Amino acid sequence: MKIPVINIEEKFSKVNEFYSYKVIAQMNDYHFKIVKANSELVWHSHPETDEVFIVLEGELHIMLRDTTLVLRDGEMVVIPKGIEHKPVAKSECKVMLIEPAGTPAKGDAEDSKKEEPQWI
Amino acid sequence: MKIPVINIEEKFSKVNEFYSYKVIAQMNDYHFKIVKANSELVWHSHPETDEVFIVLEGELHIMLRDTTLVLRDGEMVVIPKGIEHKPVAKSECKVMLIEPAGTPAKGDAEDSKKEEPQWI
Repeated sequence: MKIPVINIEEKFSKVNEFYSYKVIAQMNDYHFKIVKANSELVWHSHPETDEVFIVLEGELHIMLRDTTLVLRDGEMVVIPKGIEHKPVAKSECKVMLIEPAGTPAKGDAEDSKKEEPQWI
Repeated sequence: MKIPVINIEEKFSKVNEFYSYKVIAQMNDYHFKIVKANSELVWHSHPETDEVFIVLEGELHIMLRDTTLVLRDGEMVVIPKGIEHKPVAKSECKVMLIEPAGTPAKGDAEDSKKEEPQWI
């Protein structure tokens, strides 16, 4: 079995579209996904799971119902399951997400859909 | 509920000893642990779980029985469950580990012991 060393920046260099989530690694039943963000998502929550955001470049705001979290390079947050949140990228930022495989990006939002994860 | 933004570098600044694993975040039943490494660990495997290493600074070698993986800043690897490995830090490096809470650092090695995780 070949175990790959994953260079996260090199993986980002292959992502040309915003909000095009790509899986770069799997640990047990969890996916590591990268995404370039440049605008805002809808309010949603994930009823079944916590969700980790790690900001690798730029600044990501995560609105909660009572406050807004500001994450910059090298910062991470765990959004607990069931907590409504709305990620907002004021300008381009690079984010790694960690959550169970199959977790839809928009969680329980009305227009959420389960997408087949694409690996790069 | 207060959701903390976690600055990974700031957490490392509180770690003064090598191989003193500190938990900085929990996602479901998984821990995010940071460690400063500067030497080698024993050969071991984790029979029950995959294990993720993310190198944040420096260079970490992970010996496998048939090859050696070299990870530098911004690189990560998933060591599949059951695969024997031996992490070797040639000089000081900063690493984040992701694995189920309670996973012992030395896995199934003879001198492995289950340690109470310390949060910072």
